[in-house]
Amino acid sequence: MQYPEPIARLIDSYMKLPGIGSKTAERLAFYTLDMDNDDVTAFSQALVAAKRDIHYCSICGNITASDPCAVCRDKTRDQDQVIVVEQPKDVMALEKMNEYHGLYHVLHGVLSPIDGKGPEDINIRSLVTRLQQNEQIKEVILATNATPEGEATAMYIARLVKPAGIKVTRLAHGLAVGSDIEYADEMTLFKALEGRQEL
Amino acid sequence: MQYPEPIARLIDSYMKLPGIGSKTAERLAFYTLDMDNDDVTAFSQALVAAKRDIHYCSICGNITASDPCAVCRDKTRDQDQVIVVEQPKDVMALEKMNEYHGLYHVLHGVLSPIDGKGPEDINIRSLVTRLQQNEQIKEVILATNATPEGEATAMYIARLVKPAGIKVTRLAHGLAVGSDIEYADEMTLFKALEGRQEL
Repeated sequence: MQYPEPIARLIDSYMKLPGIGSKTAERLAFYTLDMDNDDVTAFSQALVAAKRDIHYCSICGNITASDPCAVCRDKTRDQDQVIVVEQPKDVMALEKMNEYHGLYHVLHGVLSPIDGKGPEDINIRSLVTRLQQNEQIKEVILATNATPEGEATAMYIARLVKPAGIKVTRLAHGLAVGSDIEYADEMTLFKALEGRQEL
Repeated sequence: MQYPEPIARLIDSYMKLPGIGSKTAERLAFYTLDMDNDDVTAFSQALVAAKRDIHYCSICGNITASDPCAVCRDKTRDQDQVIVVEQPKDVMALEKMNEYHGLYHVLHGVLSPIDGKGPEDINIRSLVTRLQQNEQIKEVILATNATPEGEATAMYIARLVKPAGIKVTRLAHGLAVGSDIEYADEMTLFKALEGRQEL
C-alpha cells in the first residue's frame, strides 16, 4: 500500500528540499492538507513567481526582480566603495546595519579546490571587468566569511585587484560585541590580539 | 532594504510550515532559486493538487484521492476486524508490516483535555455509527500511541464499544524487537513484565 498519488507527489517534492528527509516531508505534506486554501495557493504561486521573476543583477550579481538591482540603480549611494560578499543574504545583513551606503558585489560562492570550485565558478571575472570599466570605484572591501575558503577567496581577489591601484580592505576579525573572552575560540582570540587598536 | 518581493513572499510561505523559522525559510527560498525549473513547477502543482484532490474517506476517515478509500472498497480484506489509529501515517506503518488484512478507522487525533480536545473533536462518533451499521465487525483493535493521551483515548473507546458485545483489544506493549533491556524505560519494562507470556 502506498500513499494516494497526490500526497505521494507532494512528499517527493518536499524531500527535494535540503535537510528534509522522508519523515519530515511526510509531516509537512500532512500539514499542508490542514492549511488554509489561500495559504496553499499563495505558496504554490510564490514558488513559481520566485523562480520566474527573480534574476541576478547584471552589474553586482545580487538577486533582484528588475535589472539592474535597486542598489546599482541608486545613484545617491557612494559610488566609490564596493563590498564583496559570498551570498545575497550577506548583502541583507550589511544593509540592516544602516551604516554603509556604497555598492556590493555578490560572488555566489567561494573558491574551494576540494569541491572543485575555481575562480571561473564564482562571480570574480565580472568584478574585475566592473573595476576596469568603472573608475569611480576607489576601494574594494572584502567581506567573505571568516572561514578558510572565505579567507582564501579574499586573498585571491586582493592579489587580483591591488595591482590596478585600488585600495583593498578586509572586514576586521575579533571578538563579537557582547561575547565573553572565556568562550571565544583560539583563532578569534588570536585575530583580536593581532588587530588590537590603541585607545 | 528588503528582499525583492517575489523572494520575500516565498520566504513568508516557507515560514508558515511547522518547525521552519526565518533563517531556514531564507535558506529554502534561495535553494528554490537554484532548483530545476521542472522541479519547482512540479512542487507548485503538487501543493495545489494535494489540497484539491486529497479527501477523507467517508467510511474510515483515512486520506484518499477517491471516496471510499482503497481499503474500504477492497472486499477481499477481512471485514470483521477494524484497527483504530490516530493518524493516516499509522495506517501506512501497519500496512508495511504486510500481516494485517482487515479494516482501519482513523481518529485524526486523540482526546486531550489540556488542549481542549474532546470526543467530538476526533473521529469517534463515525466509528460508533460504523459499528452499529456494520454487523460484520467482530473485533476493534485499538492502536493509538502508547502516550497518556493515546491510552486515555483507547480506554474511552473501549468503554463505548464493549457494551455492544464487540471484542476490543489493544496492541501489546513491551520491549521493542532488537532493543536492550538496559536502555528500556521503566514504563516499558513494567508493561513487558505485566504482559509476559508462557513459553
